[in-house]
Amino acid sequence: MNYGMAARVIGNLLLLEAAILSIPLGVSLYFKERNAVLGFLLTMGIAGLIGLFLSNVKKESVRLRVKEAVLIVTLGWLLVSFFASLPFIFSGSIPRLVDAFFEAVSSLTTTGSTVVKNVEELPKGILFWRSFSHWLGGMGILVMTLAILPTLGAGGQQIFRIESPGPAPDKFTPRVVATSKILYSIYLFLTVGQITLLRWSGLPWFESFLWAFGTVSTGGLGLYSDSMVRYGANGFLIIVTAVGMILSGINFSLYYDLGKRRFKQIVMDAELRLYLGILLAATLLVSLNLYGNVYVSAGETVKQAFFQVSSIMTTTGYATADYDLWPAFSKGVLFFLMFVGGSAGSTSGGIKVIRFLVAGKVIKREFARTLHPQAATPITINGKVTSPDVVKGVASFYLLYLAVFVLGSLAISLENIDPFSAMSAVAATLGNVGPGFGMAGPMQNYALFSPFSKVMFSFFMLLGRLELFTLLLVFTPRFWRE
Amino acid sequence: MNYGMAARVIGNLLLLEAAILSIPLGVSLYFKERNAVLGFLLTMGIAGLIGLFLSNVKKESVRLRVKEAVLIVTLGWLLVSFFASLPFIFSGSIPRLVDAFFEAVSSLTTTGSTVVKNVEELPKGILFWRSFSHWLGGMGILVMTLAILPTLGAGGQQIFRIESPGPAPDKFTPRVVATSKILYSIYLFLTVGQITLLRWSGLPWFESFLWAFGTVSTGGLGLYSDSMVRYGANGFLIIVTAVGMILSGINFSLYYDLGKRRFKQIVMDAELRLYLGILLAATLLVSLNLYGNVYVSAGETVKQAFFQVSSIMTTTGYATADYDLWPAFSKGVLFFLMFVGGSAGSTSGGIKVIRFLVAGKVIKREFARTLHPQAATPITINGKVTSPDVVKGVASFYLLYLAVFVLGSLAISLENIDPFSAMSAVAATLGNVGPGFGMAGPMQNYALFSPFSKVMFSFFMLLGRLELFTLLLVFTPRFWRE
Repeated sequence: MNYGMAARVIGNLLLLEAAILSIPLGVSLYFKERNAVLGFLLTMGIAGLIGLFLSNVKKESVRLRVKEAVLIVTLGWLLVSFFASLPFIFSGSIPRLVDAFFEAVSSLTTTGSTVVKNVEELPKGILFWRSFSHWLGGMGILVMTLAILPTLGAGGQQIFRIESPGPAPDKFTPRVVATSKILYSIYLFLTVGQITLLRWSGLPWFESFLWAFGTVSTGGLGLYSDSMVRYGANGFLIIVTAVGMILSGINFSLYYDLGKRRFKQIVMDAELRLYLGILLAATLLVSLNLYGNVYVSAGETVKQAFFQVSSIMTTTGYATADYDLWPAFSKGVLFFLMFVGGSAGSTSGGIKVIRFLVAGKVIKREFARTLHPQAATPITINGKVTSPDVVKGVASFYLLYLAVFVLGSLAISLENIDPFSAMSAVAATLGNVGPGFGMAGPMQNYALFSPFSKVMFSFFMLLGRLELFTLLLVFTPRFWRE
Repeated sequence: MNYGMAARVIGNLLLLEAAILSIPLGVSLYFKERNAVLGFLLTMGIAGLIGLFLSNVKKESVRLRVKEAVLIVTLGWLLVSFFASLPFIFSGSIPRLVDAFFEAVSSLTTTGSTVVKNVEELPKGILFWRSFSHWLGGMGILVMTLAILPTLGAGGQQIFRIESPGPAPDKFTPRVVATSKILYSIYLFLTVGQITLLRWSGLPWFESFLWAFGTVSTGGLGLYSDSMVRYGANGFLIIVTAVGMILSGINFSLYYDLGKRRFKQIVMDAELRLYLGILLAATLLVSLNLYGNVYVSAGETVKQAFFQVSSIMTTTGYATADYDLWPAFSKGVLFFLMFVGGSAGSTSGGIKVIRFLVAGKVIKREFARTLHPQAATPITINGKVTSPDVVKGVASFYLLYLAVFVLGSLAISLENIDPFSAMSAVAATLGNVGPGFGMAGPMQNYALFSPFSKVMFSFFMLLGRLELFTLLLVFTPRFWRE
């Protein structure tokens, strides 16, 4: 194991974090929030010092294998989350470490669960930091480091592959630094667009920024304990936010294609079609279930259904209504959408639509094989044959995701809450969605869970964000064998 | 499609059913139950006539391909279930067709869900027929036909493969008629043993027979609305039943090995080890969760935990306690065990332990591949390499099982009951378990569900019993293409 090189990369990451903390520090200075200012300054000092120390560790070589990349990504996320939680503690906003760490992980992994009971009472700088952390984590904190500090050479490729959501983002990989920059340009463009539209919808600048961060990162933290309920009557804002979430759940490589005017490729993209198809079908089904039942007007019904389906499927987690009070069918649709998630190569979580596409084709092939056992049909996506390794990876991912979900639900059910609450809280954290149902419902928060559960939830959020294998690999003996 | 041959096989199946109905008829005659006697006689007449007609349809050839085998198994199960439901209707015990069909399917698929509110009021002959149907369906109604009427030649192999639970029961297939006979001998031996032990525990003969049928078939229907709660104090009976269920959830080929004195093979069998390991671990965890909480004495705790874990995991569904009132963790363990099920080649349902064994190895291989992408390690079970086709089949089965579970849960949640009730009812019918939680709990029944839900449940029970692909294949256009 090349610990020296790993330490240097993580050191750079922490230095970058210390520098970035000057932005929320500026916000707190502007709003004259004394405790928050001190909290940010203290954190910047500590993170900066440790970062400086680590980035000067002697390296044996610059070589980075898969092993080092896995270690860097895992430790990197843990440490960045830890330092991101310090301003919460130092400012007195979230005094307990377990709570502050939960909040930081939830922010950085773009989950959007919160342990804060009265979000309205948080200092503006802290509110900004939570939402800005969403934005930072959305594209990957190491991908960001790559874009800004291109010092990794070939090792960057491994890191990029590990931190990017979904199987095989092969379209870009050859030139990883350039790719990171392209992705961040797209991301920035979406963000600026979203801020502008939200400002246009009537929100003040500060709120526009924060909601935009939570939208384009498919995060879900906001400014109020009841999420977006107060905006329910502002149709323009609701639609802008819903569309913003949907756009952020699309594979960013398609925006690259858009820039290259490859329109046919975009329109024919199988994952995009399935993604939009599921969104449409779920909106329709939930609308039919809610109409005349929960909402009287057809327009209101479709608006609420469309917003909530988009929010849950993209794993954002904003709510314009307490969907925990909706009928069982709508709750069921939303619950299962938590597992689906958005597209690979987007900022959203969950299992990802592309894996469902592959799964559907695997099942279809099995039907064919039952009738004609000798026939060997390959799996194709967008007309290209998918390598058997990718198919194996997809199958393994499903199985492991379910295993984590099952064991996680059992661990949380030690709280002795109703099983659906427990299961939805695990699905919501593992899928980086945010709110679930019941005790973890959209008008509730995670404050009442035990410290044990909060640690577990933090673990699930990191597991989901790093797509299971990376993080769990570190716990296998094989990983540490030289 | 060789419809002639399919008709003849199904005709023979119905003739056999008509003949078998003379057994419950005898019971009803003995207990002088006029309506039930008439019900059985009428059904025998109708089934006999239609069977006679079908078995004389002109066949083009004796050739049976996979297609015909699938059609025979699917139609066979549907028709045998339909005729099995007629005595319920004609006797006035369960007057509505949708209810009677549900009950018949539940009996034959060894699920053990019931729509009967007061089981105690059913005529003895009808009670016998429900439990005896469990027994008939346990090893497969077509495998039974093969054992008794060996007229199918090579086509029998296809049918055997399709109706036997679990992937690839390759140990036996070469001589399918002989295999069917061996399996039935083992089954008969287990049944006789179970009856004897239950009689010894103090039950009357009639009750011993019925509970034994429900145990060795891992069915779950019995004589009372509160299942086995009244026997709670009879420790011997509880242990005998629990062990009986566990023995019936073991791959029957291991009993064959036992007869051949292949002890080492049995002890080293990976599926058996995992099966017993899960039973043990779940019993331990549930015991720890219940101790001092639900039960005061350690002995009572372990007894209840052991019984309920065995009952749910083997997909029997007997209950000695209202486990729906247990704490969330225990409920969670039982809920997820519904998906696990027993071993392949046993009478139990669920996904089957062997598939979890394969899944675990697939996940393990993926961890290895993440570190060393070029390494290609095959999956081995019991020291033998598993063919990639079997692994593909396992992965597809999981994915399809989950898809059916998700869509099924949504369909049932149209009832607007709590999501966990709906999900557990689907898991319990799809896994051929029987009772679930909440509205479908062990002290409840399925009577209050809507007719739509009852039809769906019947479909899930058949899907689970025939392991998804067979039944669903008939709904694909590909199947009907010549």
